[in-house]
Amino acid sequence: MTKTFLNVQFPVLDDGFVRPVDVMGGDEAVVQAARVSYGAGTKKVSEDRALIRYLMRHRHTSPFEMCEIKFHLRVPMDCWRQWVRHRTASVNEYSTRYSIAVNAAQTTAPERWRRQSSDNKQGSGEFLDLVVGRELSRAETEIQTLARKTYEERLRLGVAREQARKDLPLSTYTEAYWKIDLHNLLRFLELRLHPHAQHEIRAYAQCIYDNVLCAWVPMTAEAFADYVLNAVTFSAVELQIMAAINGGRAAEAAEIYRRAGWDAPKNRERAEFEKKAAKIGLKF
Amino acid sequence: MTKTFLNVQFPVLDDGFVRPVDVMGGDEAVVQAARVSYGAGTKKVSEDRALIRYLMRHRHTSPFEMCEIKFHLRVPMDCWRQWVRHRTASVNEYSTRYSIAVNAAQTTAPERWRRQSSDNKQGSGEFLDLVVGRELSRAETEIQTLARKTYEERLRLGVAREQARKDLPLSTYTEAYWKIDLHNLLRFLELRLHPHAQHEIRAYAQCIYDNVLCAWVPMTAEAFADYVLNAVTFSAVELQIMAAINGGRAAEAAEIYRRAGWDAPKNRERAEFEKKAAKIGLKF
Amino acid sequence: MTKTFLNVQFPVLDDGFVRPVDVMGGDEAVVQAARVSYGAGTKKVSEDRALIRYLMRHRHTSPFEMCEIKFHLRVPMDCWRQWVRHRTASVNEYSTRYSIAVNAAQTTAPERWRRQSSDNKQGSGEFLDLVVGRELSRAETEIQTLARKTYEERLRLGVAREQARKDLPLSTYTEAYWKIDLHNLLRFLELRLHPHAQHEIRAYAQCIYDNVLCAWVPMTAEAFADYVLNAVTFSAVELQIMAAINGGRAAEAAEIYRRAGWDAPKNRERAEFEKKAAKIGLKF
Amino acid sequence: MTKTFLNVQFPVLDDGFVRPVDVMGGDEAVVQAARVSYGAGTKKVSEDRALIRYLMRHRHTSPFEMCEIKFHLRVPMDCWRQWVRHRTASVNEYSTRYSIAVNAAQTTAPERWRRQSSDNKQGSGEFLDLVVGRELSRAETEIQTLARKTYEERLRLGVAREQARKDLPLSTYTEAYWKIDLHNLLRFLELRLHPHAQHEIRAYAQCIYDNVLCAWVPMTAEAFADYVLNAVTFSAVELQIMAAINGGRAAEAAEIYRRAGWDAPKNRERAEFEKKAAKIGLKF
Repeated sequence: MTKTFLNVQFPVLDDGFVRPVDVMGGDEAVVQAARVSYGAGTKKVSEDRALIRYLMRHRHTSPFEMCEIKFHLRVPMDCWRQWVRHRTASVNEYSTRYSIAVNAAQTTAPERWRRQSSDNKQGSGEFLDLVVGRELSRAETEIQTLARKTYEERLRLGVAREQARKDLPLSTYTEAYWKIDLHNLLRFLELRLHPHAQHEIRAYAQCIYDNVLCAWVPMTAEAFADYVLNAVTFSAVELQIMAAINGGRAAEAAEIYRRAGWDAPKNRERAEFEKKAAKIGLKF
Repeated sequence: MTKTFLNVQFPVLDDGFVRPVDVMGGDEAVVQAARVSYGAGTKKVSEDRALIRYLMRHRHTSPFEMCEIKFHLRVPMDCWRQWVRHRTASVNEYSTRYSIAVNAAQTTAPERWRRQSSDNKQGSGEFLDLVVGRELSRAETEIQTLARKTYEERLRLGVAREQARKDLPLSTYTEAYWKIDLHNLLRFLELRLHPHAQHEIRAYAQCIYDNVLCAWVPMTAEAFADYVLNAVTFSAVELQIMAAINGGRAAEAAEIYRRAGWDAPKNRERAEFEKKAAKIGLKF
Repeated sequence: MTKTFLNVQFPVLDDGFVRPVDVMGGDEAVVQAARVSYGAGTKKVSEDRALIRYLMRHRHTSPFEMCEIKFHLRVPMDCWRQWVRHRTASVNEYSTRYSIAVNAAQTTAPERWRRQSSDNKQGSGEFLDLVVGRELSRAETEIQTLARKTYEERLRLGVAREQARKDLPLSTYTEAYWKIDLHNLLRFLELRLHPHAQHEIRAYAQCIYDNVLCAWVPMTAEAFADYVLNAVTFSAVELQIMAAINGGRAAEAAEIYRRAGWDAPKNRERAEFEKKAAKIGLKF
Repeated sequence: MTKTFLNVQFPVLDDGFVRPVDVMGGDEAVVQAARVSYGAGTKKVSEDRALIRYLMRHRHTSPFEMCEIKFHLRVPMDCWRQWVRHRTASVNEYSTRYSIAVNAAQTTAPERWRRQSSDNKQGSGEFLDLVVGRELSRAETEIQTLARKTYEERLRLGVAREQARKDLPLSTYTEAYWKIDLHNLLRFLELRLHPHAQHEIRAYAQCIYDNVLCAWVPMTAEAFADYVLNAVTFSAVELQIMAAINGGRAAEAAEIYRRAGWDAPKNRERAEFEKKAAKIGLKF
């Protein structure tokens, strides 16, 4: 296999990137690890793709740990704060105690300022008006310029780098090596490709998924899309309701609704179920 | 809260036990950790149960890490081999290098010998005939007796404990302290309560679930049952098929079947889907 | 044991704090876990203190994992960036996606600006002149004020919190629950009490050591000071040199120096050895 | 670099082996990760070997996590029980639920039976008399033969594999893929090359050190030998005593002894210090 994605610098945001620098294993290593469980005498009954799909479907995660990948990254610190919450990974970050901070901060184009989401307390909605956006971008430049000037003035006056950096904005870019196994990379992607993830880290996750995962482990990426990214889980209560509806027992369905407290106004569980039910065209 | 389960020795198998010896936190600590994300000014909109259910439903796992539990366990080594594969836990096991091995091995009653499962390569099916079982239990006693005699003879002749133990049977009981956070305990229970888990470790998982989890964190245990233990996940392909069926588009459903390779004889994905579909009374 | 340190808010830096909120276990739990290795029949030969010292001396770390502690913390984000690099811990951080950022940034008094260290590329040296410090503190107020104003203006104009925060300074305080076992807490303290650790995080580590560790697990804290914090390790080469010097074989010592490349100017290994040798009054 | 050790099956014990199957990185990847901390503008002051020694000396462990290695192993289950206690690694073990257990148990030659150590409760001493050894080996064959016969009889009668295996001896060989990063491999080797580690696992550790580590990462292996394997740590009390002795203040040294409780008979700390002092020819 030629790994054409290796050492390619994939751009993300205005000045960030993802650059895969080394890999160990691939789809075939997942299969090899899974087969050790079957022992020497086992016939190769199922072919690789079916086996990988089986592992993914039943959350047999350990064979996916047998692959490893290492990236060189350039990410705004604000985004990096979320990134390092994924603990099962190895990290060597550019040190602003040893070196002068990267002279770049993430900037926002006037048309890219996002309104507070109305239905998701932690999220963003549509873009703000361009007139407002222009003013916001102007003010962004002002604060970023002053922050850098203050930083450089501190260094000029002899302040230690570790202290001088203290008022750099969270938008400042940092760089790092990041090494993670395939199982934990999938978990990172699952969480960071989610519609509720913040735009910035989603952009990185999408870049990794599109340019790296699909090229590196195509069978795993396909199974991951089917069984994780685009799958839907129904709870015990939801399964009962669906069984009642499919069985034509509307009264029973209503009764389950009531017992679950779903008849309260603004009940969140019901709202989420109805969205999922719409997805499969369930009529009730 | 009085924790009546603390220091109770719950028996498992013929000579094993589970004894919870200490806990930190509970449902209220999960809630407290989740609320730190909302900041000081946030009104307590949703009550605790709804919040815990929300966290469980959306796999927001970190608040569940805020609770911790410690057990004293007595488990056959064969079962313990599976147990310690759960790495995110702390363990101090009884050392047979320092001390003489526990003088007890797991025994099997004549009516408890399990036949190899016909449809699950790693599992067991129904019980063997009692006549055969009697012979098996007799032979079990013989091998266990000889193994212990050999062990004790080695010790008598001055062999080091660490070497003398080498031919003890896997059925020998061991003891340990085992400490784990609630999130990882749930993961342990999810995997070890699964119908495909081996009978022996399922017995321990069931004991912990029934006697400890439900008493310690009742809201979490309920949410876990609804959203994990008794939930069902449908893949991207399965959702498409369900949408086609529910929409009365049988031909489209058949076409998706075909494209997914489900018309092959003994296709495993189809067989699993049909089981799930039956559960919700989907007719097609 | 009354745990008088629980729920006490210990101040750190200008506006931070450490507040222990819950513990599981203590010195006695370390001992209990260590003893399980000795089995039921073992006499209590050594008393607890000696056992804990033995465990610490020989890096038998697993019994220390049997204790757990949970803190509520308030820390500047710059410092928190270092803190979360300790991966074997559980964290729930205040979310500035959900809530408005804490309205406080770490400020520096005019007499507390630190000069870049001359002999340690990552560290700080003595304080800068007060006249310069006054100017630096004035500029600090300016950048922090503008950053907050910009943040609040963004919120006022409807920008999503997750985006509005992007140019907050690293000095902004954050809050979190942090839960860790005793073994990993010791490792945190070892690294963060080190003279090369940054001043800010050292202040937190010192506060935890003084006010929490010594009160919670006094025997462990004492052994940790003797065998880790204040211990010195000599390498294979250094041991050979010491043996030669103590044996009066100066020529041999010089020869080992030479072979190790220590006669090169500015050899770092030699410089470090000489500092350690001075500590034990080794004359050569 | 040609990695001549890859895919070589290095024999260990009577029927075990270590076979490295894949690696990521090497000494150069450690250096590369360490340098990211220095930033683009940093001159390459120190050459690679000195940098790796510096990292090892000061326990800067994260750059060593940037390398990864995967082994195929064959190990007696008794030894494997110790092996899997190293949690920061990925494992896929041969499953005796799916397949028939490996038909091989670790055997002991008549001259290799080890006496219980007199000074180390968990260890072994010299070998037992050959006459006794012959009898022990004969009995070993007997128990292993009966255990295998019982196992096969169970399978013949239709007992499920997962239950049939329950009385196999701990000496039965198992196989696994084992993947670990270099930092954690060093920690494994440090603990398992220790004189107090059990003979069997030491044999594996020595094999990995000799045949794999030194060939894969020669600079790291050398630094590891100097600063970890063959280094000695002196505690705070020991340093004080050494300073007093080197300063010719014998009375002070005696006083420190007394205060530390070292004048008690059979004091373990004193005994350990005297061994270390002898190593550097300290006279007192």
